[in-house]
Amino acid sequence: MKKVRVGLIGTGYIGRCHAIAYAQAPTVFPLEAQLVLEYLAEITPELAAQKAKEFGFNRSTGDWKEVVSDPNVDVVDICTPNFLHKEIALAAIANGKHVYSEKPLALSAADAKIMYEAAEKAGVKTLVGFNYIKNPTTQLAREIIARGEIGEVIHFYGTHNEDYLANENTPLDWHCVKEKAGLGALGDLAAHIVQMSQYLVGSDIEKVIGDMETVIKDRPNPKNLVERLPVENEDQATALVRFVNGCMGTIETSRIACGRKMGLSYVITGTKGTITYTQERMAELKLYLHDDDPARQGFKTILTGPLHPDYKNFCVSAGHGIGFNDQKTVEIRDLVNGLANNQTMYPAFEEGFKVSRVLDAIAQSCEQKRWVNVDEIA
Amino acid sequence: MKKVRVGLIGTGYIGRCHAIAYAQAPTVFPLEAQLVLEYLAEITPELAAQKAKEFGFNRSTGDWKEVVSDPNVDVVDICTPNFLHKEIALAAIANGKHVYSEKPLALSAADAKIMYEAAEKAGVKTLVGFNYIKNPTTQLAREIIARGEIGEVIHFYGTHNEDYLANENTPLDWHCVKEKAGLGALGDLAAHIVQMSQYLVGSDIEKVIGDMETVIKDRPNPKNLVERLPVENEDQATALVRFVNGCMGTIETSRIACGRKMGLSYVITGTKGTITYTQERMAELKLYLHDDDPARQGFKTILTGPLHPDYKNFCVSAGHGIGFNDQKTVEIRDLVNGLANNQTMYPAFEEGFKVSRVLDAIAQSCEQKRWVNVDEIA
Amino acid sequence: MKKVRVGLIGTGYIGRCHAIAYAQAPTVFPLEAQLVLEYLAEITPELAAQKAKEFGFNRSTGDWKEVVSDPNVDVVDICTPNFLHKEIALAAIANGKHVYSEKPLALSAADAKIMYEAAEKAGVKTLVGFNYIKNPTTQLAREIIARGEIGEVIHFYGTHNEDYLANENTPLDWHCVKEKAGLGALGDLAAHIVQMSQYLVGSDIEKVIGDMETVIKDRPNPKNLVERLPVENEDQATALVRFVNGCMGTIETSRIACGRKMGLSYVITGTKGTITYTQERMAELKLYLHDDDPARQGFKTILTGPLHPDYKNFCVSAGHGIGFNDQKTVEIRDLVNGLANNQTMYPAFEEGFKVSRVLDAIAQSCEQKRWVNVDEIA
Amino acid sequence: MKKVRVGLIGTGYIGRCHAIAYAQAPTVFPLEAQLVLEYLAEITPELAAQKAKEFGFNRSTGDWKEVVSDPNVDVVDICTPNFLHKEIALAAIANGKHVYSEKPLALSAADAKIMYEAAEKAGVKTLVGFNYIKNPTTQLAREIIARGEIGEVIHFYGTHNEDYLANENTPLDWHCVKEKAGLGALGDLAAHIVQMSQYLVGSDIEKVIGDMETVIKDRPNPKNLVERLPVENEDQATALVRFVNGCMGTIETSRIACGRKMGLSYVITGTKGTITYTQERMAELKLYLHDDDPARQGFKTILTGPLHPDYKNFCVSAGHGIGFNDQKTVEIRDLVNGLANNQTMYPAFEEGFKVSRVLDAIAQSCEQKRWVNVDEIA
Repeated sequence: MKKVRVGLIGTGYIGRCHAIAYAQAPTVFPLEAQLVLEYLAEITPELAAQKAKEFGFNRSTGDWKEVVSDPNVDVVDICTPNFLHKEIALAAIANGKHVYSEKPLALSAADAKIMYEAAEKAGVKTLVGFNYIKNPTTQLAREIIARGEIGEVIHFYGTHNEDYLANENTPLDWHCVKEKAGLGALGDLAAHIVQMSQYLVGSDIEKVIGDMETVIKDRPNPKNLVERLPVENEDQATALVRFVNGCMGTIETSRIACGRKMGLSYVITGTKGTITYTQERMAELKLYLHDDDPARQGFKTILTGPLHPDYKNFCVSAGHGIGFNDQKTVEIRDLVNGLANNQTMYPAFEEGFKVSRVLDAIAQSCEQKRWVNVDEIA
Repeated sequence: MKKVRVGLIGTGYIGRCHAIAYAQAPTVFPLEAQLVLEYLAEITPELAAQKAKEFGFNRSTGDWKEVVSDPNVDVVDICTPNFLHKEIALAAIANGKHVYSEKPLALSAADAKIMYEAAEKAGVKTLVGFNYIKNPTTQLAREIIARGEIGEVIHFYGTHNEDYLANENTPLDWHCVKEKAGLGALGDLAAHIVQMSQYLVGSDIEKVIGDMETVIKDRPNPKNLVERLPVENEDQATALVRFVNGCMGTIETSRIACGRKMGLSYVITGTKGTITYTQERMAELKLYLHDDDPARQGFKTILTGPLHPDYKNFCVSAGHGIGFNDQKTVEIRDLVNGLANNQTMYPAFEEGFKVSRVLDAIAQSCEQKRWVNVDEIA
Repeated sequence: MKKVRVGLIGTGYIGRCHAIAYAQAPTVFPLEAQLVLEYLAEITPELAAQKAKEFGFNRSTGDWKEVVSDPNVDVVDICTPNFLHKEIALAAIANGKHVYSEKPLALSAADAKIMYEAAEKAGVKTLVGFNYIKNPTTQLAREIIARGEIGEVIHFYGTHNEDYLANENTPLDWHCVKEKAGLGALGDLAAHIVQMSQYLVGSDIEKVIGDMETVIKDRPNPKNLVERLPVENEDQATALVRFVNGCMGTIETSRIACGRKMGLSYVITGTKGTITYTQERMAELKLYLHDDDPARQGFKTILTGPLHPDYKNFCVSAGHGIGFNDQKTVEIRDLVNGLANNQTMYPAFEEGFKVSRVLDAIAQSCEQKRWVNVDEIA
Repeated sequence: MKKVRVGLIGTGYIGRCHAIAYAQAPTVFPLEAQLVLEYLAEITPELAAQKAKEFGFNRSTGDWKEVVSDPNVDVVDICTPNFLHKEIALAAIANGKHVYSEKPLALSAADAKIMYEAAEKAGVKTLVGFNYIKNPTTQLAREIIARGEIGEVIHFYGTHNEDYLANENTPLDWHCVKEKAGLGALGDLAAHIVQMSQYLVGSDIEKVIGDMETVIKDRPNPKNLVERLPVENEDQATALVRFVNGCMGTIETSRIACGRKMGLSYVITGTKGTITYTQERMAELKLYLHDDDPARQGFKTILTGPLHPDYKNFCVSAGHGIGFNDQKTVEIRDLVNGLANNQTMYPAFEEGFKVSRVLDAIAQSCEQKRWVNVDEIA
């Protein structure tokens, strides 16, 4: 059996999610290659060693460059802060490694394009961690739409709102600094819903016009909590979009939306029906079909179950519930099987680039107060 | 006790709602004038007579002009199709009558302005039937916001979606004809949510940029059901808006939104909390307060009750439920008491004009693909 | 046109609801007789006069006996505290009046039986104010069940929980005194859900076993708020029941159920589907059908609309909402039309007696800690 | 570091859940012993070998007796059909092994008692797989109750309803055969809610009276699908219960409850508040506090997050969702750490016995149609 040997770089919030998914994936799914947790990098050798032990990796290092060049690593998994994605990915590609990167792929569409083109040229496989589309429930939504059950999609409303920065006295962190994060809520959160919109509508976004605001203009300096430093990117943004197929759409995002803990949601209206979903109830989908008996019309709450994509590997009974890490586990399955079979994976760097381009187009449309075609960017 | 003698013109869908509200208002509320159902007009004397009997009006006529000039009528209540609002209102004003008109006030902001200015000049009182803001639940939302309970309002998301034209084979009716309806979903539905947004945010809309689509391009001719006639106005529209106070907003409307029977809804985000509401559950409001104990944060579902505005007149127990016609009953109370005390009512023609201006600005922004300042209109 | 001349006795909480319904009924429904608000009684002539004016009654009196014997009264409407129902109803019947009584019909099944038999013997028509079954939504539930859409009903779970006495320092009132109220939560609240269970299941309750508790043993004397007086009846009760048709059931009731403002609810399980409902969302019904495509099964939320019983008279658009008083308005329609056509109405005193019998059986089963057949009672 | 070497017997539905949990537990939690997946038994050596590979176990066998006597096994994990629990557990105990058994512990309280006493006598540690109480959300409910936030608990309503046998033509399987399953819905499903009720109320059930029904009397013989065989145990059951502390309760269970995919739910009413929960939305808890400002009362929907028990090990952001297998992962943590520290675990065989006793008491009360004290059993 072929092996897929992983080199993980970064073990914070999302790196730990990857580790949990790596741990359970071989038991949950019949993987088509042997998954080997080979090498792990962190900012110090000590932290790397500790995390390697915690996550079950064979070896560790304090220098990520050793991972991207290691002969026993097949795929480099990038879970670092966003501003490092580009450098690491390019180094990995240069060494002929496949690359599995967290989102957003880069701080700008221009950078994402460089990464995408480098991978294409090198002929390595790529995957971007837009894990929410791996949720069986959202896969079900995709299936319902693709089968035409709600007719032609005519409107997409999507949000990714959270409230992690809602308190004006939460100290400034890297999310608020352009050099580290690029965009604000758009880059950190809307990346997901933009990508998901394209996946669900089955068409790319063509043009956009947005509006945004940095509501909390400054925040305490985390070093002294007294001085206040400027917030450099947007707290909230909204955009009207048009997909290539003509579908209208609205995207909303905020990192200061009080009460939203995982406010990724969509309402997809078709000519024959409507789907609604919120990630805060990630195991249920609401479906309305207009052709139902008029006296019995209504939104039906479907609990995700074994008849829906990828659920039965977690549990053979419906409605028993899937969790956040289970999405990542499906993603790992896609990674391992994709590499095992030398197939193009989805969403690859191309999609990551497309998403960055939409985000940059939104930002530009806000500044220039006009509709921006996505292909004006990068 | 002073009398308020009503002349009702039009007894269709909304005219009948007025009649139900007139019937129950004196029992529900301690009115400050005696409400007299004096005169009723319909398109034929026969229909008028029948409706007068059904609705309890003293006299009837087949000619609305008799109503607007009748010496025993104090206020003219206009429940006709939209395209007649202007002519009737101006005639009533010319006769010194107070005017209570259904929404939208007119087919265009220009017409609405003429009506508003005529009323101002004549010194008559006016009221526009934006009844949804009279719902105790939405009054509660207003109260919560006005008291600062959710901090400064930073985002308004509002919809008025219905599906009454979702079926592409529903025959063309006057809603789809520019000359009769003016705008499509914007005029028929969004008028409500635009007005409500200004009421709730406590600030007028300053500028807008929208997008719209006539999804179903033609519909069966109602006369033969074979031929198809063009639909002349928009099925769905979306707009980004900015309020004068800087608050961002999004307005969505559709008359082909499968599954939405009364899809008037709002999500209002403040710096300290969030409110959500949908008219389909018109007796409950969800409220999130960010200052709650972090381990006990969440949206609270408040059932409207006697401690909230205007509810206790319907029932002294909480959660017992208010209905569609109850909103209109509150509006009638405002009408009667306003006229009894010779007070300016809310929302008056001025607000009706402002709303029309926003709607026209949205339509213009869609055509011109640019941000439009509301004061560019009319 | 025949007249139905009403004599109303009692104008408190529920009397006022009747008045609102009387006011709007003729506009909402095409009544088959002319409704005349003829005579009103309260405990003093002054209060009666004031209420007659407020409610639009022709005459008033401080002595209910004048109402029951008045030649111009056709039907006596009893909205007094429960302990007076019997005396007034028997006096009205003795005078050949039809009787419309609020629930519970009497303080005991024995009394209810006397009333029922007196009415039968006198040949007068009766109606009991179990208004919640008049809600179009619950009528829809009945229709779905009666048509066999959910198969054979095999389980009924019903509650009527409220929290009006949840605070232990709420002073004692008549609800807590046996002589005035009879049973506690069972009589005041469970009467509704017991009656509704029989209406919906389409079968009477045959036997019961219950459990109950007076959780708050004493309450402040309302006269001095210092002394505490004993609570004489149950705060909460639960019962297992079996219907004549073999269906199993559970009934729960409480007047101290924190958070329940109008906690009348049911879950009705059939061999082919399930219905759920809560009065706190009185315009929506959830319906699950097991024969749906297994991959698209789920509870569908149906918003009550014009295709459902009695809704379109309130509004011709679906999902626009019905309120508490609208139920009573349907009841008034049944009263007026029933009397107009000299028909037996539902639910009549017979049903009121049956309900009292079930309630007494539950109380007895609690005391004797055994299953009690309903026909052991009265 | 100490080792905990597991011998797993049975790899069906629940055995596979254990395997997934074993796989992820060391990454999710900082375990206090090294978890070793040592030995696995299935009904044939071939199946055992295949599953050992799939689940990552070191060795495998076609004879469970080899597992219970293996010197390198510390704890025997029993995931077999229910009727084998007793024999395997007693054999394991006889060999001095710790035992981790799935629920229900045995087919009868008498058997469960023998198992419990054997373990006590042998001094081995035990754990029963009532995994739903390990859900962070239900742990939060327990915490809220234990801290007195809803006052004294006065009523518990709990269900465990599913619809896996709702179709009358689903062939008979072992669940319907007394010798294999013991009780029907009570044993398979209600075991969970009974155990959970005691965990949440903080008091054991003292006495019960129930009612039950085998609604579908016979089912197709799975061997020929033509002949119909009798169903030997109950499809649905309901019971009134009283806890030792006086709290009233109702337990409902069904395996033919159309629409319930994971219908484990509870409503817990206290003197100062109420909690509601359904397993179908396993990451949210609704909490009502009666001391809230009366005009702002309502049920608050709390999304489980890192401030609640055991959640942050799965994800450090609130509302991101936990799944079915995550509960089992918490249970594995408890197992490993309990054995690492030689501590009594919860819920141990004693609790398993108590639950079986309650279930048998309910069954007996149904047959004898009387209240049964739990201590009358076994």
